[in-house]
Amino acid sequence: MSQPDYKNHPTLKQKLYVIVFGTETRTGKIFDIVLLWAIVLSVLSVMLESVNELNVRFGEIFTVLEWSFTVLFSIEYILRILISKKPAKYALSFLGIIDLLALLPTYLTLITTGGSYLIVIRTIRLLRVVRILKLSRYLREASVLGNALKASRHKIFVFIGSVFTLVMIVGTLMYIVESGENTEFTSIPRGIYWAIVTVTTVGYGDISPQTTLGQSLASLLMLMGYAIIAVPTGIVTSEIATAERDKKLSESNDKSCDLCGNQVHDHDAEYCKKCGNQI
Amino acid sequence: MSQPDYKNHPTLKQKLYVIVFGTETRTGKIFDIVLLWAIVLSVLSVMLESVNELNVRFGEIFTVLEWSFTVLFSIEYILRILISKKPAKYALSFLGIIDLLALLPTYLTLITTGGSYLIVIRTIRLLRVVRILKLSRYLREASVLGNALKASRHKIFVFIGSVFTLVMIVGTLMYIVESGENTEFTSIPRGIYWAIVTVTTVGYGDISPQTTLGQSLASLLMLMGYAIIAVPTGIVTSEIATAERDKKLSESNDKSCDLCGNQVHDHDAEYCKKCGNQI
Amino acid sequence: MSQPDYKNHPTLKQKLYVIVFGTETRTGKIFDIVLLWAIVLSVLSVMLESVNELNVRFGEIFTVLEWSFTVLFSIEYILRILISKKPAKYALSFLGIIDLLALLPTYLTLITTGGSYLIVIRTIRLLRVVRILKLSRYLREASVLGNALKASRHKIFVFIGSVFTLVMIVGTLMYIVESGENTEFTSIPRGIYWAIVTVTTVGYGDISPQTTLGQSLASLLMLMGYAIIAVPTGIVTSEIATAERDKKLSESNDKSCDLCGNQVHDHDAEYCKKCGNQI
Amino acid sequence: MSQPDYKNHPTLKQKLYVIVFGTETRTGKIFDIVLLWAIVLSVLSVMLESVNELNVRFGEIFTVLEWSFTVLFSIEYILRILISKKPAKYALSFLGIIDLLALLPTYLTLITTGGSYLIVIRTIRLLRVVRILKLSRYLREASVLGNALKASRHKIFVFIGSVFTLVMIVGTLMYIVESGENTEFTSIPRGIYWAIVTVTTVGYGDISPQTTLGQSLASLLMLMGYAIIAVPTGIVTSEIATAERDKKLSESNDKSCDLCGNQVHDHDAEYCKKCGNQI
Repeated sequence: MSQPDYKNHPTLKQKLYVIVFGTETRTGKIFDIVLLWAIVLSVLSVMLESVNELNVRFGEIFTVLEWSFTVLFSIEYILRILISKKPAKYALSFLGIIDLLALLPTYLTLITTGGSYLIVIRTIRLLRVVRILKLSRYLREASVLGNALKASRHKIFVFIGSVFTLVMIVGTLMYIVESGENTEFTSIPRGIYWAIVTVTTVGYGDISPQTTLGQSLASLLMLMGYAIIAVPTGIVTSEIATAERDKKLSESNDKSCDLCGNQVHDHDAEYCKKCGNQI
Repeated sequence: MSQPDYKNHPTLKQKLYVIVFGTETRTGKIFDIVLLWAIVLSVLSVMLESVNELNVRFGEIFTVLEWSFTVLFSIEYILRILISKKPAKYALSFLGIIDLLALLPTYLTLITTGGSYLIVIRTIRLLRVVRILKLSRYLREASVLGNALKASRHKIFVFIGSVFTLVMIVGTLMYIVESGENTEFTSIPRGIYWAIVTVTTVGYGDISPQTTLGQSLASLLMLMGYAIIAVPTGIVTSEIATAERDKKLSESNDKSCDLCGNQVHDHDAEYCKKCGNQI
Repeated sequence: MSQPDYKNHPTLKQKLYVIVFGTETRTGKIFDIVLLWAIVLSVLSVMLESVNELNVRFGEIFTVLEWSFTVLFSIEYILRILISKKPAKYALSFLGIIDLLALLPTYLTLITTGGSYLIVIRTIRLLRVVRILKLSRYLREASVLGNALKASRHKIFVFIGSVFTLVMIVGTLMYIVESGENTEFTSIPRGIYWAIVTVTTVGYGDISPQTTLGQSLASLLMLMGYAIIAVPTGIVTSEIATAERDKKLSESNDKSCDLCGNQVHDHDAEYCKKCGNQI
Repeated sequence: MSQPDYKNHPTLKQKLYVIVFGTETRTGKIFDIVLLWAIVLSVLSVMLESVNELNVRFGEIFTVLEWSFTVLFSIEYILRILISKKPAKYALSFLGIIDLLALLPTYLTLITTGGSYLIVIRTIRLLRVVRILKLSRYLREASVLGNALKASRHKIFVFIGSVFTLVMIVGTLMYIVESGENTEFTSIPRGIYWAIVTVTTVGYGDISPQTTLGQSLASLLMLMGYAIIAVPTGIVTSEIATAERDKKLSESNDKSCDLCGNQVHDHDAEYCKKCGNQI
């Protein structure tokens, strides 16, 4: 009896909860969209502040903007804590911790300098956009990608390990070969840095071999990098293909079992693989 | 009765329509091929005009060429409007808009300067080559590629979104780490530009980390870029493989068995593989 | 009767034919291996000759070597013409033309200068190694790769066409955007060259955008290059996978038809798809 | 009778064997972990020693560390020889040779200079980590990768051969084209080095074409590199996909049906999909 009555006359806390945490009502949506724009603008403001010419001309505006956004987000954070049914759970959730971390840098500038750029952590708050736009389709695709990467994590681990060993050995060899005539290979860590830059085909060119032996070794590393770059691609492609096939199978399979309801059957199955019932 | 009579004595408008829009008759083909060469030459002329040495020596020739082609294309455009059965439909079609946009830059040079290079838009007119050469086979392949990209657009969107977040965070971190000792990381947007150059393995080297911490962070980003570049490849490969399989299935599917109704046959099958009935 | 007799007492021409063209006999093998080493050494000699320090010190040796090898190869070429059963057929075959082209550059140096480096054409003669080592397994693998590339030539053509259009438009845009403040984008062709260097992720860094707008455009092009590089990989992977599957099917299929001998059947086939015979 | 007694009162040699070679007992594990850290620290020490600033400040510490680790590893090596059941087999095994090679560089510094950096060979000793952590799952994944690479070795050989021929021809052509106006293409080997740097999309930019013809040739090489880089990826992806499928098949193959003999079942199948019999 009190349930419908309760719904018609919600308390202020309940009203605010629907606006701040909810995404169904009109006011809830407006709140989320305003919040998103505030996040985008605050991140943009921090980035532009770092450009010297803009900082000289609009420095004070940036400071005002930064503090305005921070105060706004602080109020929002306190509000979320206050109206949340389980404050501790929110505060310790992934989004809750990000919400807090996104506030701290500005306050830190009162004590020390240089930390203000950490505000870039606010970009992670943009993840809320997923909830608002109800991009469930994107979430599903993201989960396909995520599962593919997760399923191949052992292979990727082995691969990164092999690459790292290769890079350490080649980097050291290059240091031994080049250090005499080339002023760019000043230490082994620098040689390893060069080897990573080369094997990943980034190739800045800030460090490059000068001796004939060094260039031969580098050519070898590049041709190996050719074969090497094929490996993670092969791993991920294979996993995505499997994930896709599984998704399609589970989606399109008309052959669900009447008895036990098991959905995933091969297209040539005549009996349910779970309960043995004829399909 | 009037229909064959009408065909034997077409009006001038009808004759021109067959030449300008048609591709079947000999005159229609000649018109299209002349048009294509005019497009190629006009684009080439604009490109070469931008080379300083050539502009100094042949500047007037380029101006004459540009205006000749523009007048020619203007006449062609007006002709298409006049003889088209539905002028408005042509004018608003994709090719119609491109035809118009390809004319404007030259006329714009009468009012303002610098816009003449937009003539490069004429390259898009080369798409007409597809119609002329009846490259239906290429079109089918293009549609396979297009479908594969379209089918994976959600995954690619998720992927680009993730890369962009990564790049913003790493770019900011590098600015914080490097800005003290390195004069190249002058702002966060520049840091982000560097991160994009690095993670896509382009690696110009115009901006590169100098500090040990920066180089370590860069190495990490490159190794991540390794795994990351595998993702779009995996997505597209998986989709192309699916599209290919579907194409083959639908080709062979024309051969269904009348007797047992088995659908999946190879395209070179002459007898049903399930019941032996001749297809 | 005369056949074995003929074999026991072959003419000089027949003896030479077995040595020069054959690969079965011991002398034939020795001839081929000596030839291969001569090719390798002559190519190596031309390459090292181009290194200035070596040319200054060993210049005369290189000239002597080059002429020795050329005379040797000339004798070999004339011999092949003389002893070949169908001289015209050999002279016009792929290997025959390469054999001739590999001789000409040295003789050209008598008339003109600078052409001697074309001797690098001799590297193509190394293809003979395949015949000698009987690398039939490698040839089969090469044909799998070749077929995969051939099967996907239409898609690759469409792809290269799209990339070229993209590169022409972006190159021109960059020229318009950068030419004011950047002395590196001196013409549209140079802009196109930059766009190719960027989209293929080579990224020399000899030309790189300086303005903010240019760097944004470049970032966009790089991220597009990410998706673009996935396309040829997807095409080729898909074709190789298909080729592999077909090869395995045709190799391992125990289900050959007794009636018509057709080998390629699906693993679930119960009747031959060519003649309808029960397997 | 003596067997259990023997186990309860093992000799010192037997005790040490369990500690040094074994990984099951607590002391064996501790020994291995201490050894691993010693390897990591000794490699790190050699790397940091090569950084000039650190060497100036902490040079003596590095020397002490290096000799301490070397003496430690020497004792360990002699111990392994002494307590091993088959000393010769250990000494000639892969790990045994690496263990010896990792000791020599330091002793070499007594006779000659410059060889100390070869200590980086110790990184290979980190392979022992696999045994300790019992990363059998990683080993299995590594074997999938290894098999995939091994199965495609013929194709990769053909591919590397083709790339090498391409690179030699293009490198020579570029030398002919550029050597006049560009001081960077000083010899054919340098041209080949540039071609490798370009075709692998590394693109240092230390050597880059300056003439229009050279840049056109380079653009062509880059676009070919596009198609070329797709080939190893396609090969490896195809092999990994096959290896994965085989692994799954052999996993599920344990579940063959007793009644109808159908072999191919999913790994989660409980009933035969062909006859409904419980597996």
